[in-house]
Amino acid sequence: MITQRTDYGVGTVVHLEYATAVERMKQALADEGFGILCEIDVAATMRKKLGVDFRPYVILGACNPPLAHRALVEEPDIGLLLPCNVVVYAADEPGRSVISALDAVAALGLTGKADLRPIAEDVKARLTRALAAVERGTLAHAAS
Amino acid sequence: MITQRTDYGVGTVVHLEYATAVERMKQALADEGFGILCEIDVAATMRKKLGVDFRPYVILGACNPPLAHRALVEEPDIGLLLPCNVVVYAADEPGRSVISALDAVAALGLTGKADLRPIAEDVKARLTRALAAVERGTLAHAAS
Repeated sequence: MITQRTDYGVGTVVHLEYATAVERMKQALADEGFGILCEIDVAATMRKKLGVDFRPYVILGACNPPLAHRALVEEPDIGLLLPCNVVVYAADEPGRSVISALDAVAALGLTGKADLRPIAEDVKARLTRALAAVERGTLAHAAS
Repeated sequence: MITQRTDYGVGTVVHLEYATAVERMKQALADEGFGILCEIDVAATMRKKLGVDFRPYVILGACNPPLAHRALVEEPDIGLLLPCNVVVYAADEPGRSVISALDAVAALGLTGKADLRPIAEDVKARLTRALAAVERGTLAHAAS
């Protein structure tokens, strides 16, 4: 079940290895109209910049172009809150991964602009559906 | 002068062409210990995905690795709020550009975690200094 994991994000823990979880989440995002505008390999960055080990962890910058365009026309500085991040990382339990998406309603709420709320709600609904699709896929796979 | 342009960002308008503003902001960020983990050309994305024209506009994903590492250890889902965005875009007035950075205190405030506040304040201070350095550079250049 997709839950409000934090005040600023919704997500779940799936029974998938990290690489599979990343792959499926990307597909689910594409199905909901999100392109990935940037992809940050956090573990590789930490290793390269600090020489430390970190769990497998990726930040995906997801963007739905029509919604982003509407937000940017409404408020030019809104790029500070775009794209909408999705993270996938290896959970502490082997064979499980955390998938989580920024709560666009909370994030765009920082603007104090009521006009942006319908856009934020649309983004949050799409991201929640994408998370649920990955979760359902897992369950279907596990049952087959 | 660097001002709180919005509830979620600090920035200013500089007397610089867009391309120069981008270049100088990147240098100023490097001087404050930020790497650029992703760079999104918003105008190119809008043209490609929607076929619409948009002002020159870039989103720079700035990351200070030691501070990001501390935040991620403290709170794994914090990747949803990383990296810290900086935007540069062509202002409505010719020859001027807007440079603006996410207010890390406001953004990390979404977590409700008091432990993250010192990190957020450090990030905000560094980004504000970077913005001020670009602004000062402009003034020095204009005066020479």
